[in-house]
Amino acid sequence: MDRILDKLNLPEDLKKLSNKELTALAGELREIIINTVAHNGGHLASSLGVVELTLALHAVLNSPEDHILWDVGHQAYVHKLLTGRLERFHTLRQWGGLSGFPRADESPHDLFTSGHSSTSISAAVGLAKARDIQGRKNRIVAVIGDGSMTGGLAFEALNHGGQLQTDLVVVLNDNEMSISPNVGALTAYLNRLRTKPQVYRLKKTIGDIVSQIPKVGKSAIHYLEKLNDSLTYLFIPGVVFEELGFTYLGPVDGHNIALLKRTLQDAFDHGGPVLIHAITKKGKGYEPAEAEPCRFHSTTPFDRETGQPYRTPKNATYTQVFGDTMVELAKEHPQLVAITAAMPEGTGLNRFSEEFPDRFFDVGIAESHAVTMAAGLARGGMRPVVAVYSTFFQRAYDQVVHDVCLQNLPVVFCLDRAGVVGEDGPTHHGVFDIAYLRHLPNMAILAPKDEGEFRQMLRTVINHDGPAAIRYPRGEGEGLPLDREFTELPWGKGEVLATGDQVLILAIGNMVAPARQAAATLARRGIACSLVNPRFIKPLDKELLLPLARKIQRVVTVEDHVLAGGFGAAVLELLSEEGLSEVQVERIGYPDCFLPHGSTADLHRAYGLTEENIVRTVMALAAPERKIKSAK
Amino acid sequence: MDRILDKLNLPEDLKKLSNKELTALAGELREIIINTVAHNGGHLASSLGVVELTLALHAVLNSPEDHILWDVGHQAYVHKLLTGRLERFHTLRQWGGLSGFPRADESPHDLFTSGHSSTSISAAVGLAKARDIQGRKNRIVAVIGDGSMTGGLAFEALNHGGQLQTDLVVVLNDNEMSISPNVGALTAYLNRLRTKPQVYRLKKTIGDIVSQIPKVGKSAIHYLEKLNDSLTYLFIPGVVFEELGFTYLGPVDGHNIALLKRTLQDAFDHGGPVLIHAITKKGKGYEPAEAEPCRFHSTTPFDRETGQPYRTPKNATYTQVFGDTMVELAKEHPQLVAITAAMPEGTGLNRFSEEFPDRFFDVGIAESHAVTMAAGLARGGMRPVVAVYSTFFQRAYDQVVHDVCLQNLPVVFCLDRAGVVGEDGPTHHGVFDIAYLRHLPNMAILAPKDEGEFRQMLRTVINHDGPAAIRYPRGEGEGLPLDREFTELPWGKGEVLATGDQVLILAIGNMVAPARQAAATLARRGIACSLVNPRFIKPLDKELLLPLARKIQRVVTVEDHVLAGGFGAAVLELLSEEGLSEVQVERIGYPDCFLPHGSTADLHRAYGLTEENIVRTVMALAAPERKIKSAK
Repeated sequence: MDRILDKLNLPEDLKKLSNKELTALAGELREIIINTVAHNGGHLASSLGVVELTLALHAVLNSPEDHILWDVGHQAYVHKLLTGRLERFHTLRQWGGLSGFPRADESPHDLFTSGHSSTSISAAVGLAKARDIQGRKNRIVAVIGDGSMTGGLAFEALNHGGQLQTDLVVVLNDNEMSISPNVGALTAYLNRLRTKPQVYRLKKTIGDIVSQIPKVGKSAIHYLEKLNDSLTYLFIPGVVFEELGFTYLGPVDGHNIALLKRTLQDAFDHGGPVLIHAITKKGKGYEPAEAEPCRFHSTTPFDRETGQPYRTPKNATYTQVFGDTMVELAKEHPQLVAITAAMPEGTGLNRFSEEFPDRFFDVGIAESHAVTMAAGLARGGMRPVVAVYSTFFQRAYDQVVHDVCLQNLPVVFCLDRAGVVGEDGPTHHGVFDIAYLRHLPNMAILAPKDEGEFRQMLRTVINHDGPAAIRYPRGEGEGLPLDREFTELPWGKGEVLATGDQVLILAIGNMVAPARQAAATLARRGIACSLVNPRFIKPLDKELLLPLARKIQRVVTVEDHVLAGGFGAAVLELLSEEGLSEVQVERIGYPDCFLPHGSTADLHRAYGLTEENIVRTVMALAAPERKIKSAK
Repeated sequence: MDRILDKLNLPEDLKKLSNKELTALAGELREIIINTVAHNGGHLASSLGVVELTLALHAVLNSPEDHILWDVGHQAYVHKLLTGRLERFHTLRQWGGLSGFPRADESPHDLFTSGHSSTSISAAVGLAKARDIQGRKNRIVAVIGDGSMTGGLAFEALNHGGQLQTDLVVVLNDNEMSISPNVGALTAYLNRLRTKPQVYRLKKTIGDIVSQIPKVGKSAIHYLEKLNDSLTYLFIPGVVFEELGFTYLGPVDGHNIALLKRTLQDAFDHGGPVLIHAITKKGKGYEPAEAEPCRFHSTTPFDRETGQPYRTPKNATYTQVFGDTMVELAKEHPQLVAITAAMPEGTGLNRFSEEFPDRFFDVGIAESHAVTMAAGLARGGMRPVVAVYSTFFQRAYDQVVHDVCLQNLPVVFCLDRAGVVGEDGPTHHGVFDIAYLRHLPNMAILAPKDEGEFRQMLRTVINHDGPAAIRYPRGEGEGLPLDREFTELPWGKGEVLATGDQVLILAIGNMVAPARQAAATLARRGIACSLVNPRFIKPLDKELLLPLARKIQRVVTVEDHVLAGGFGAAVLELLSEEGLSEVQVERIGYPDCFLPHGSTADLHRAYGLTEENIVRTVMALAAPERKIKSAK
C-alpha cells in the first residue's frame, strides 16, 4: 500500500502538502475510517463530513499549542488519525482501546474531553481568557455542528464570547443534521443563509459596498449611508451572529480545502470572535452513509460493500418496545404527547411522530426546554412523555426539580440507555440517574426487569398523577412474547421472584435476570434466597421489604448504577429509618469513579454486575464467619 | 382612604377603566407594594417596574382563562394584588402567608410556579401546544426580563416557539438589569434597539415602506425590491427575533398603559409568535429604588422615607467573608479567577470585580456556561472559582459531571445560600446540593462550621488539584474575629469538638453550632457525647469516624439538607461498607417534601434542626428502651 499518510510526520507535514495532495489524503482517511467503523461500529457519518475541514484546520494551526475543540466529539476520528493515533485506530471504542470521543487523557491534541453537545464554545471562551490573562498568543477554534448550536449552552457562550471580543474562531459545521434532521427556527435561518451568495470575505465599509452596486441613484446612496449599520444586513447574511458580536464568514463549502484554509487564515488575521459557516455533507464519500446519514450516525458493524449491518438484534430492543407501546397508548389516550430532544430515531419515537405528528415534539438538542415545555403541556391538561437518554437527562436536572417536581405535574420521563451503555464510554453511561432523582420530592422512579414489564410500567405511569421516571437499559430485552393486554401494575409494589430464608436479594431493572440465575445457582448449592424485583426504586415497597429484611437479616442489592446515593443506598436509608440497622447489607453496583468504554458485558464483568459475583457475594454474606467482621 | 382599588371587582373591572384611571390605580398599587416590602422585605424594584405592564395585561386579557407567565416571578406582586390577594398582601413572604413568587397552589391566576430564571417561554410553548391540541382559543403571554433572556433555556424556547408558529406573545421586559446590570452581546444588541425609532406597528410590505422613503430614485427602488426580505432589516429593528420566527413589536414605552394595551392587542390580532419589546425602569416610582435598583432588587425591611434598611447585619455574612477572602487570595494567586452568573453583588464578588477586573467574569444568567467556561479556564492553567447560589447551581449539573468532574479539573464551586434560605421559599432553598454532587467521582464537598473555617477552607480548596464545592448558608456568621493568617486545612480531615462515649454527633456546616449547644446541654444532663465537625462531606474522614462509631455504636447526624442521599446517608453507606451496620444512626434533616417559605428560624424549628431536637434525639437514642425497637 502506497499511502501518503504513511510517509508523513503528522500533523506538522500537512503544512507542506499541496491542496491536491491534501485532497488525496482525504480519500485515504475516509478509507481507514469506513473500514474501521465497518469492523468496530461507531460514529461514521459525522467524521466523513469533516475530513476536509479537519485537514484544513491542522494545515493552518499548530496543534497542540493551538487548540481545536470538537463539540460532542464523535466527528473527531480524522483528528485522531492526524495526531498520532493511526497505529492504534483499529482499537477504536474497544475495551482498553481508543475512545470514540476526544479524551484529554488520551492525547495532548485532545485538549478537552467531550461527548455531550454544545459545550465547545464555552470551553473555548474559557481557554481564550486563560490565554489572554497569561499573555499567550495561541489560536483557539471550536468546531460545532448546527445541531449542537440549538442547545442553550451554545447560545450562552456565544452571548458571552461576543461580548468579550477576544480572539476565538467558531466553525459552524452545518450539515443540516444533528443525529436526525434539525429542527427549530435557527435551522430555518441557517437554511436561508445557505442559499445566500458566498461571502467569505470580510465585510467592507458601507461606502465600499454601496459604490459597487450598479444602477443605484446618488440620492439613494446618500440616504442609505445614513441608515448606517442596518445596511450591512443587506450584504452580510449572518446578521444574527453579527448582532451577537461575532464576525460572520460564510457560507463556505466545507469540502473545499483551499477555501477552508484561506477562510481560517482570514479569520485569524481579522481577530476577535469570528464565526465561519461551513456547509458540509454528513457521510460524505461513502454512498450508503450519504443516503442514510441517520442510520450511519452511530452504527453497529456493517458490510463495507453494501452498508448492511452484520447483525440485527435478535430480540426487540427496549427502544423498540417503547416506540411501539407509545403508539398503542396514544390511541387510547388522546392526552398523550411525546417529546424528544433531537432523537426521534434514537429514542424510538419515529413511528409515533408519523402516526401522531400533532402530538409529537422534537425540540432540538434542548433537554432543558424539553422538560419545562413538558411541564407546560402537563399544566395545560396533556400527559407528556419525555424520551431521553439517561446521560442527556442530566442536562435538565433543574427543570425537573423546579418546573415538574415542585408543581407535582404528571410528566413521564423515559430514560433510555440507563446503566452502562458500552462503547461510547463515560460521557454516555447512564449511571447517575437514581442518585440525581431520588431526593426529589414527588418523583417516582421505576425500572423494569424485562420488556414485558416495561410495557406495563409505561401504561401505569401514564395514568399516575405526578412525575415519574422509568430507567431502562440500552439494547435488547429478554426476548419474551409481549402481552397484548395492558395490566396496570399496583403503584409502589414490588414482586417476589423467589423465596428463601438465608439471603434477600434485591435487584433492579436489567440486574433481575442475573440475580434470578444466581438465585437458581445458589439454590442448587443449598443456599435458599428470596429474590425481589422492587419495580419501584421510589417509593420503595416498605410493606414487602421490611418484613423480609427483618426475617432474613441479610440483604444483597444489585443495580446497574453507582453505589453512592443509588438504590442500595435507598435500602440502607429505609432500614435505618425503620430501626433495622442490624440487617447486613452488601451492595453491588459501580464504585466512585468514571467507568471506561468497552462492551456492556466487559463493563458488567469488570465491576461485578454478574451472576457469578452475585453468587459470590451472597455466599460470603451467608457464611457464618461474616459475623466476626461486624463484631471486630 | 378613598382608593379606586377598593371599589373594583378585579381583575375584570380593569377593562372598564380609562387610561387615566389606570394610571391613578398604578400609583395606588405602588404605594401598597412599597409599604409592604418596607415592612416585610422582598423584591421591590422589579415589581415597581412592571406596574403599568401588569395593568395593561390584565386590562386586555381575561385571566385565568388567558394565561400570564411571569419569568422568575419576583415581579408578580402587582399581579397578585390584581388577582384576589389584596387582603392577604400584608402576609407576603411570611410563614404561612403569601409567597413572593407565583405559586400554582396559591391562585388559579398563577398558572405556573416560578422562581428560577428563563423558564417562562418554554412553559408558554407547552401551554400553547396543549391549547392547540385541545382546540381551545385562550391567549398566552410570557413576561420575561432582558436578564432572563441571557439564559440558554430562553433561547431554546424561542428557537422552538419560533418554528411552531403558534399564537404566543412574549413580552421582553427590558430594564437593562437582571439583578445587577446585564452583560453579554444580547444586552448590547438590546441597547442598540432601544435607540431605534419606536416601531410598534406591524411591518408593512417592502413596497409600502420603500414608497414612503423620500428622495429614493426609481432605479434604487427597483433594485432594493429585488433584495427582498433582507430589506426588512432596514425597518424592523428586532432582526434577531425576526430571524428566530418571532414578529418583533417595539421598542415600546413600558410605562405607557395606553400604548401597551394597543400593542398587546396588535400582537394578538396578528397571531403567531410575537415578541413585544417593552422598555421599563426598575424601581419606577420610588426614588431610592430608582437610584439603587440593585439594592432594592431584594431588600430587608427599610424605612419608607429614607430607603435605609432598619437593620444591618451584626456579624459579617458568609457572602462578605467570601468576597473579602477572594480579594486576599487573588493577591497571592495570580491564577485565581472568579465567575458569577449575573450576581456580582449577591455572591459578594463585587470587590473582586473592581480590584481584578481582568480576572472576573460575569457571564449573565448562564450557570451552565459559567461551569463549562470554568472548565476551559482550568484547562488553560487558571484556578477558577464559580460563585453561585446552591439552588441555581442545579442548572449546571451536567456541566459539573461532564466538563469538570470527568476531566478532574481544579474548579472550585462556592455554593452560597446552601440549606434553607428563608422567605424566598422552595424555589430558592439550597437543600439538594449534597445529594446531587456526592455521587460524582472526583468531587470533594465541604461545609464550614463558621466564617473563620470558611476562610481557611477557601484557601485550602484553591490549592487542591481537582473539583471541590463548599456549601455555606445564607446570612451572618458566628461573629468570630477572623484569623489574619491562612492555615491550610488537612485534606479530608474532620475535627473533634467534644468527646464522650454515649452518642456520637456528626453535624455539618451551620448545624455544628446548635449541635455544640446540644452537646453542652446533654453533658449537663449527664449524657456524654462526642461531637465531630467532619468539614468534608466527601471524602469522609474514615480514620476519624470509624473508630468512634465502632466504639460508641450510636450516631446522630445533623444537616441543613434533605435526608435522601445527603450527609447522613453517606454515613450510612460508609458504615455499611465497613461492616459496621450494627451501629444505630438517627439522621436529622429535611423529609421528602418541598419546604415552604418563612424565616430560616421558622423552618429550622419546623423540621427539627434545632438544639432542642438534637438533645431529644440523642436522649432517645441513648435510652436503653431504644434496643427494643430494633428487635421487634
